[in-house]
Amino acid sequence: MYKLIKDNFSPQEILAGEFGLERESLRVNKDGHLALTNHPAALGDKSKNPYITTDFSESQVEMITPVMNTVEECHNFMENLYNIVALEIGDELLWPQSMPCVVEDENKIPVADFPDKSHENTRYRTYLLNKYGGRKQIISGIHYNFSFNSNFTKKLYALSESELKYNRFKDQLYLKVSRNFLRYRWFLIYLMGASPIVDKTYNQSCGENIKLCNPNLTDNNVISFRNSVCGYENKETLYGNYTTVTEYVQSICEFIREGSIESHKEFYSSIRLKPHNVHHFISSLLTDGIKYLEIRSIDVNPFEKVGISILDLKFIHLFMIFCLIEPENNFTEWQEEALSNQHLVSIKGAMDIMMKKNATFISLKDWAQEIYIKLNQLNNELNLDLSDVIDNIKIKLEDKNNLPSIKLKNLVEKEGYVKAHIVLANKYFKDAFRNRFRLKGYEDLELSTQILMREAYKRGIKCTITDRTENFIRLEKDNHVEYVKQATKTGLDSYITYLIMENKSVTKHVLNKHNVPTPWGIELNEFDPYKIEPFLQMACVIKPKSTNFGIGISIFTKPPTKEDLKKAVELALTFDNTVIIEEFLKGKEYRFLVIGNEVAGILHRKPANVIGDGIHTISQLAEIKNQDPLRGKGYKTPLEKIPLDIPVELFLKQSNLTLNSIPNPQEIVYLRENSNISTGGDSIDYTDKINTKLKKIAIKAAQSVGAKICGVDMIIEDLENPMSKFGIIELNFNPAIHIHCFPYKGTERNIAEKILTLLGL
Amino acid sequence: MYKLIKDNFSPQEILAGEFGLERESLRVNKDGHLALTNHPAALGDKSKNPYITTDFSESQVEMITPVMNTVEECHNFMENLYNIVALEIGDELLWPQSMPCVVEDENKIPVADFPDKSHENTRYRTYLLNKYGGRKQIISGIHYNFSFNSNFTKKLYALSESELKYNRFKDQLYLKVSRNFLRYRWFLIYLMGASPIVDKTYNQSCGENIKLCNPNLTDNNVISFRNSVCGYENKETLYGNYTTVTEYVQSICEFIREGSIESHKEFYSSIRLKPHNVHHFISSLLTDGIKYLEIRSIDVNPFEKVGISILDLKFIHLFMIFCLIEPENNFTEWQEEALSNQHLVSIKGAMDIMMKKNATFISLKDWAQEIYIKLNQLNNELNLDLSDVIDNIKIKLEDKNNLPSIKLKNLVEKEGYVKAHIVLANKYFKDAFRNRFRLKGYEDLELSTQILMREAYKRGIKCTITDRTENFIRLEKDNHVEYVKQATKTGLDSYITYLIMENKSVTKHVLNKHNVPTPWGIELNEFDPYKIEPFLQMACVIKPKSTNFGIGISIFTKPPTKEDLKKAVELALTFDNTVIIEEFLKGKEYRFLVIGNEVAGILHRKPANVIGDGIHTISQLAEIKNQDPLRGKGYKTPLEKIPLDIPVELFLKQSNLTLNSIPNPQEIVYLRENSNISTGGDSIDYTDKINTKLKKIAIKAAQSVGAKICGVDMIIEDLENPMSKFGIIELNFNPAIHIHCFPYKGTERNIAEKILTLLGL
Repeated sequence: MYKLIKDNFSPQEILAGEFGLERESLRVNKDGHLALTNHPAALGDKSKNPYITTDFSESQVEMITPVMNTVEECHNFMENLYNIVALEIGDELLWPQSMPCVVEDENKIPVADFPDKSHENTRYRTYLLNKYGGRKQIISGIHYNFSFNSNFTKKLYALSESELKYNRFKDQLYLKVSRNFLRYRWFLIYLMGASPIVDKTYNQSCGENIKLCNPNLTDNNVISFRNSVCGYENKETLYGNYTTVTEYVQSICEFIREGSIESHKEFYSSIRLKPHNVHHFISSLLTDGIKYLEIRSIDVNPFEKVGISILDLKFIHLFMIFCLIEPENNFTEWQEEALSNQHLVSIKGAMDIMMKKNATFISLKDWAQEIYIKLNQLNNELNLDLSDVIDNIKIKLEDKNNLPSIKLKNLVEKEGYVKAHIVLANKYFKDAFRNRFRLKGYEDLELSTQILMREAYKRGIKCTITDRTENFIRLEKDNHVEYVKQATKTGLDSYITYLIMENKSVTKHVLNKHNVPTPWGIELNEFDPYKIEPFLQMACVIKPKSTNFGIGISIFTKPPTKEDLKKAVELALTFDNTVIIEEFLKGKEYRFLVIGNEVAGILHRKPANVIGDGIHTISQLAEIKNQDPLRGKGYKTPLEKIPLDIPVELFLKQSNLTLNSIPNPQEIVYLRENSNISTGGDSIDYTDKINTKLKKIAIKAAQSVGAKICGVDMIIEDLENPMSKFGIIELNFNPAIHIHCFPYKGTERNIAEKILTLLGL
Repeated sequence: MYKLIKDNFSPQEILAGEFGLERESLRVNKDGHLALTNHPAALGDKSKNPYITTDFSESQVEMITPVMNTVEECHNFMENLYNIVALEIGDELLWPQSMPCVVEDENKIPVADFPDKSHENTRYRTYLLNKYGGRKQIISGIHYNFSFNSNFTKKLYALSESELKYNRFKDQLYLKVSRNFLRYRWFLIYLMGASPIVDKTYNQSCGENIKLCNPNLTDNNVISFRNSVCGYENKETLYGNYTTVTEYVQSICEFIREGSIESHKEFYSSIRLKPHNVHHFISSLLTDGIKYLEIRSIDVNPFEKVGISILDLKFIHLFMIFCLIEPENNFTEWQEEALSNQHLVSIKGAMDIMMKKNATFISLKDWAQEIYIKLNQLNNELNLDLSDVIDNIKIKLEDKNNLPSIKLKNLVEKEGYVKAHIVLANKYFKDAFRNRFRLKGYEDLELSTQILMREAYKRGIKCTITDRTENFIRLEKDNHVEYVKQATKTGLDSYITYLIMENKSVTKHVLNKHNVPTPWGIELNEFDPYKIEPFLQMACVIKPKSTNFGIGISIFTKPPTKEDLKKAVELALTFDNTVIIEEFLKGKEYRFLVIGNEVAGILHRKPANVIGDGIHTISQLAEIKNQDPLRGKGYKTPLEKIPLDIPVELFLKQSNLTLNSIPNPQEIVYLRENSNISTGGDSIDYTDKINTKLKKIAIKAAQSVGAKICGVDMIIEDLENPMSKFGIIELNFNPAIHIHCFPYKGTERNIAEKILTLLGL
């Protein structure tokens, strides 16, 4: 097998695979007690959300990534799910360890609440509660789903000249991996186990066992309570038969017949063979064979926000390849020995213990070294480029203080059980908040799209990218499919609505037909002294019809002379055959974001500015302002850092200021003319500050062109005056949403939620 | 008045105005008898179509232009209406004269048929029939609606320092024009009268009068029967009071009270004062004053397809300005004298008659010369640039053989009454057919838009252009408004449907999700020897993802070598970051035009070619083929002329041919590789030749992306084989419709009709 792979496969082919992660986490109060609140409604129907649901307990969040092609994608996705959940649970935190938080009264653990109480979900949980007790059922872990890429198994099949059918051949591969996984799982538990300690309220759950594991609570050698006899185990020791799929299925059926377990779901093995169709576990396994393996021995790593590091994900991947390649011994009692090794390492792994390998004693240290050498060899000979993984194993083997279990035990000894965990949980919450506007692994997408996708995942809407560079996504829920481009280009608006908005003069034509106020104006193809006459009496704007970036625009804030107007028209005519002249509206510009029949947000932009404190220079004040995590560079954040460039210096010079001037306390110093966010401008939410009349006008404007999603740009002369003059200067068919979601000042608006609701998702 | 205008107004200001035309025309059989068929259903509901309706008789088509800013636009619009009607009446023709065609039995003249027989329309026509007789009611004419531009009347008002209110001042202007028009109308009738002769069946209608007008049918001096006592006149002579609007209204009310007429509509004056609101004639005239004038003395000119020339339209415009400026005489019996002059000129105008001017005798010749000089002076002194109009008057005055009346009389003497008119009508029909794909005055618009607008006018849909350069139009019928861009971009499709179709890979993704066959393929961002492997076994195409014009595309009709494939991928990568490789489908490409749930047309394009006759050279054959009126240059016609350029010569050379080679009879010689219409390719309709299965696939493809209007490009390997391989290679969101409407070969498909129906218009 090894030679076959080594001689015929590229590292790319060997490492290709499908990966998926599941992570459970308890919601807790700030004092480390299990939260008794309901699963947040914002996270959608837990029986339908494929990403975020609850496990046994209502307070036990389960986060699930889709199947992905790399472990990095899985890790990013899990981090996004973590961030989403962390920000939806109010004052509660996500408990960062596998073993439970403080649970004073086991009877108060809320079993997951499903609307239909007679549903199987509820019945099964009650059964588990009665059989295992609530505390054991809320032990949380990480499941790692893995399959080789089918090109790899097919090529292996072709090269192996097996007489089996392909599906059976593939099953044999996965069965071998499973057996070896079981044999060597102690190694994984040793390196990754991270539940060395429990709260004293847990002791009650373990009966006699707890004395074995935890004689005096802190002074012990436990690596993983979760993988110990005090952990998440069946009542009876059950050994599945991993010889063939048929035998595996038969063994499980036998457990059920004997009454040891109720269904295959209750078979708490360290690794599970998974079928194509989860709803028909047995028949699907027997006919189509194994689709993937589920590794279930992994503790939540409290030192990782996600609960597991990318390095460990890669390590497990390498470990799977090792399990595929490593030849098997024909020792018959291997399962009993392997379980014994698991328990031993879990409970005493921090000591230099002796283990049994094929009925022969071997020290943990020696055996670990043996496996390490093999992994290192695999990495080198197959060119897997995983030396970071190898190094990481090495430092853990060299010094057990590098093991997460030992690190956590040390921390708890210092800080106490609750505080040690709560400090970590708090740190992860803050990180989630700082990153609330981004979707990790999708930073190449526009912020608006990241925000929409994030909200989709939150609601349990399946979201896939159909064209990454175009920010084109596909949303699906309950067989309802919607495609969305750039967050606001949807099936809600009609093609002609877009075309109307895209064309300034047609937009104006339609708005006027609906009596929506716009600046009065005309279009010209050449300078016409007769037609321009009215504009000699008013402040006016001259602009090329189709340019969008301010090019060729002249603004006269007072009535122009005929000569100046002529020059302006001729300038604009160099950019377009058609020129628009219209009255110049005095006042400030506001962006009304209309979604459906409501104004979902109103925003005003201010040019980059600093507010003095009488101490710091302009340059220092800008630097302080730039610390805001909402500010970044290159449109990866809702706001941009204020650049202190030559235009700023020139602009300051006009007011006899330099970057080193020290403004007075409360003095606002503007740093440039234009208010673009891209040059450090501020976005300020005005949604609750603008009267209903103007909101209705904005809605009417959008409705005039038939738009369901529309950015309405309105000039309002005086916001304080309800009779103030106003006019609509532009409609935008692709309004940015991130500026409303994360303004510099004012309330953050959940625009994505409104879009998804309008889409019926 | 003259000085005021001369000193203060530019020619542009003087000539600005609003114009509208109405023209009646009888539908006749090829033998010159009145058609007894119904008004064509394709022309929509005649009680709602604002452009095409019927007048008194079901066989009397009335064509109406909207209000336009120039006479040229009016003329073009009327020509379009003519073309539309001429092509919708089957074998019938439009009678090109004011006086009726052959009407053997007056009782058989079909009165216009309205669905609701009790409707006012029907009652009024029956009343007219009984009072005037059918033959008189089917006399046809041209009405010319005119108003000065309000900027002109407002400026005149400002300069005149009148004490009247503006509306009354404006009324005074129009009343003066009307009075002068009545005084000088004989001049217009003399120059433009064109009904010098009637069919003998008409004589019965005139009683004693006919002897006066037409003693022996041809040997007479009639200019205009229509304006004579045998024409379209009230039973009694009625003189309206043109002093003020109030008196005008009072005089009409008096006629009604006396029972001379039934309503203001029956007052057959040469000029009518028209209100803003036609439905409230009297109250609207009294309150808002005169909106425009309707000139009703104009005969249909049989020598003009449209019934009137642009020169004559301009002449009438000049004549209106003359009527405004010309001082009035205080002679009280002016109305009686003017009517007498009208009758005299109408009946005896071809002789050198004496007329009465303010009770003094003056010869027609002298008076005409007098008016001519004044018109000439106006033109010169006001710089109106109407010397063509002046010259045209001059040649008519110099030689009466240049009068349309005399020309028609001469023609009828030579050819006979029916034949003379039918020959002209036939000529106009042929011209209409030749121009069936274009909309005169709108040639700058895309053909597809011209075709759609034409169909809209036909159905009585109000159609206005919102952005000319963008082919953006507004359609309205019964308060239902639809905007359309480039004929097929409508509100039927959603924005995301367009965005899906615009993106090749998203389109393919969606089609595949719906199991619509497309060529199998992958996307690459760099050459990947692993991923391209399948393509070494198949004919394939390599193309940049986003290029549309064949740039950077490589086609391998046989499986390529790895090296060639690499070169092709690298070439494509120079045009786009993403490259598509897909299987190459063998066969011919067909464009399925899906409209709603049906395939409205299927088209196949062939490269430019000629078919030999054993006599002509390739170059001569191309020249003959280029005679087809469907072929033109610069996309103004459905097909382009075959260019005999260097690529053609080089292409022929490959087969050892030159432009001077003489192909054998029936031999097809292709002239270039590509099948684009733009290089002289042929479009061939296959709509009825392709099986339902493939049509359903095309419809399914469109429906997959949610498209209501969609050009589906399908490759079909073998059209004759129902099991033939096929695949969809592209969806187009803006499919051209003209290629289906006017193919080189095969049935012309009325696509515009289907689009308008789908739009609910």
